[in-house]
Amino acid sequence: MDIAAAARYESLLSRRASLTFPSPRLSRAAFSEAQSPRYLFAGGFPDPGSFPYQELIEATREVMEHEGAQALVYGHPLGYMGLRELVCEKTRRLEGFEISVDNVLITNGSSHALALACDLLLDPGDVILTEAPTFSGSLNTFRRYGPEIIGIPLDTEGIRTDLVEDQLKMAARRGQKVKFIYTIVNFQNPTGVTMSLRRRHELLALAERYDTIVLEDDAYGELRYSGEPVLSLFGLDRAGRVLRTGTLSKILAAGVRLGWILAPKELLPRIAQFKTDGGTNPYVSRVATYYLRRHMYDHIEVLRSIYRQKRDVMLERLYAGLGSDAEISHPDGGFFIWIRLPEGTDPERLLALATERRIAYVPGPAFFPNGQDGTDYIRLAFSWASLDEIRQGVDLLCEAIREAR
Amino acid sequence: MDIAAAARYESLLSRRASLTFPSPRLSRAAFSEAQSPRYLFAGGFPDPGSFPYQELIEATREVMEHEGAQALVYGHPLGYMGLRELVCEKTRRLEGFEISVDNVLITNGSSHALALACDLLLDPGDVILTEAPTFSGSLNTFRRYGPEIIGIPLDTEGIRTDLVEDQLKMAARRGQKVKFIYTIVNFQNPTGVTMSLRRRHELLALAERYDTIVLEDDAYGELRYSGEPVLSLFGLDRAGRVLRTGTLSKILAAGVRLGWILAPKELLPRIAQFKTDGGTNPYVSRVATYYLRRHMYDHIEVLRSIYRQKRDVMLERLYAGLGSDAEISHPDGGFFIWIRLPEGTDPERLLALATERRIAYVPGPAFFPNGQDGTDYIRLAFSWASLDEIRQGVDLLCEAIREAR
Repeated sequence: MDIAAAARYESLLSRRASLTFPSPRLSRAAFSEAQSPRYLFAGGFPDPGSFPYQELIEATREVMEHEGAQALVYGHPLGYMGLRELVCEKTRRLEGFEISVDNVLITNGSSHALALACDLLLDPGDVILTEAPTFSGSLNTFRRYGPEIIGIPLDTEGIRTDLVEDQLKMAARRGQKVKFIYTIVNFQNPTGVTMSLRRRHELLALAERYDTIVLEDDAYGELRYSGEPVLSLFGLDRAGRVLRTGTLSKILAAGVRLGWILAPKELLPRIAQFKTDGGTNPYVSRVATYYLRRHMYDHIEVLRSIYRQKRDVMLERLYAGLGSDAEISHPDGGFFIWIRLPEGTDPERLLALATERRIAYVPGPAFFPNGQDGTDYIRLAFSWASLDEIRQGVDLLCEAIREAR
Repeated sequence: MDIAAAARYESLLSRRASLTFPSPRLSRAAFSEAQSPRYLFAGGFPDPGSFPYQELIEATREVMEHEGAQALVYGHPLGYMGLRELVCEKTRRLEGFEISVDNVLITNGSSHALALACDLLLDPGDVILTEAPTFSGSLNTFRRYGPEIIGIPLDTEGIRTDLVEDQLKMAARRGQKVKFIYTIVNFQNPTGVTMSLRRRHELLALAERYDTIVLEDDAYGELRYSGEPVLSLFGLDRAGRVLRTGTLSKILAAGVRLGWILAPKELLPRIAQFKTDGGTNPYVSRVATYYLRRHMYDHIEVLRSIYRQKRDVMLERLYAGLGSDAEISHPDGGFFIWIRLPEGTDPERLLALATERRIAYVPGPAFFPNGQDGTDYIRLAFSWASLDEIRQGVDLLCEAIREAR
């Protein structure tokens, strides 16, 4: 980039455009074009073999026949009614609570849903709480709004509500309000922890007592492979304190860019005001909805079985390769395994050794608000790679970990 | 809405969420479900008969075969390379200037492109200039960022650059910087005016002299039915002072929600940071691109011929019905005709009479930054209605105008 040329724009930029972000202490490995990763354990990409190619062509044909021009003109600001209804039906059937279409705003994926929550709530300098560690993509979305992000540790029951309350009190003492508490409730990304029912009740009580919002991210809720589901914060909330984001990225395909935000009815129109995209894609919304109406529940079953097996194979190879030297998460769902490296592992050396072996993973610091903590952790995704790639790649990775000690 | 319930959130909202907007003096007619408009001359909706239903099914099949998983996973932050290349090729072929893919960011339609420009440049209280009148949808996008919007009149050559300079000077005297000058260069919405080459050069010179940006909106540029094309501001600019938005909404379909912003290479990454949607729809981007690679130039020719005829029929009926009592624009392209009502027409009575006749149009004030001016104007779109609907609807409207005097 021509620095002088870029500098000339500085005086015209918005405050948000001028924000600087922490760069994580260990960034992802940079693979060259020629040497792309062979063992892709980095991003939360769905299994490419699971995509319903033929069924999407069929759905397109049906949409063109039955919807015609409606699929090709501007859409409703809240999104395609058929998809909003499907979200309600899915919530009732899979989670056992009732919502209405007036609670549902369709978005361009759940990262867009999170951005809309920020549009609604955040000014630069505001305080928000997130789990630490938490999803790096969400942190990057939040940072774009210039808040102070305070990370709260988790334990086996999820976010530490006692520490949440400490922060809420401290903010109140400073005369500040915590604008929201961001939590990934099921198979938390990256730790894999599911928040207990008790903690969920505690968190809701705190939100009400301290006048704040819980931003509940449930990108993976449908993909549970073991254990019992726990009721959603949005389903438990009686005080209008929860915004909840969901997505089709994991149960259909990320490429359709469809997600939603659930909100109390009074807040939904306020959020919708920030949708400056002419209504989320009327064309793809219909194609996806026509497909899902026929296939959703069966497809979710298929996905559960694919990912359960992938998870189990990855865990088996990790246990075999690392034994009890490392702490290895055992998530009941989702795409990720979170590993605390054996004592004495050099994280930079490990990254170099893994890159040599063409293995991609995400180093821990990306998941911490300060970009500094968590150098002794790595996150592996088992979703994209084939079973063979998982077996070979994890064996090679374990070898690298032993070598990096 | 439960006012008490909504009020409880006030202390949590961002400043942007708390902004209030002017409501235009004459809002659009509210049609009941039972009595929907029969003559739809309001929104800029493309001709529904022009949509390539069968070809989109074909394109979907090709994408599934040739692109496979690439269409269904997360996309590149700058958008699908194939579409970025197509934008470059189209610009070269239709407009005769060179851009590179490093100038092109794909967006969810051009309203999203305008919002990204605001993300980059605007803080609440900043000053921007727009034409007055200008597109109501753009005004609504801008208002969401809380700027002071100053409207600049147009004449037959486009925006009055002398008045632009007055405002730039006044802002400088107050120690403020005008963040951008928004202009719709071709077949301006709503007036139909195309900015002359001389004015384009003047505007660029002003942007450089007063250190500001020109935000060039060219949603309709491909749809010219008469007259000679004038070079784009982005193509003329040598000082890196122009951002330009474009869209597939008018040459393919609004429902695909695909547009772009062109920017100097140094600025493009700064704009891309505000894309929090996981990359503009990789699936539809590919379907649209595969379709357009085969059919774009032919399809544009077909559209030009459809809309030229619709424009001519609407103008003919308007001249027949209103004679020289009204001022009627004669746009060389685009979708709209702008009418100054005959002296003494009561705009409220006209709106009621037109609604009775099930005619929808947009009253003038929607197009003015203050929402107050322009009560003696209306905008008609000839794009959606059939030729018969245009003939009947315009005759009925002229009758209503005579009755409302």
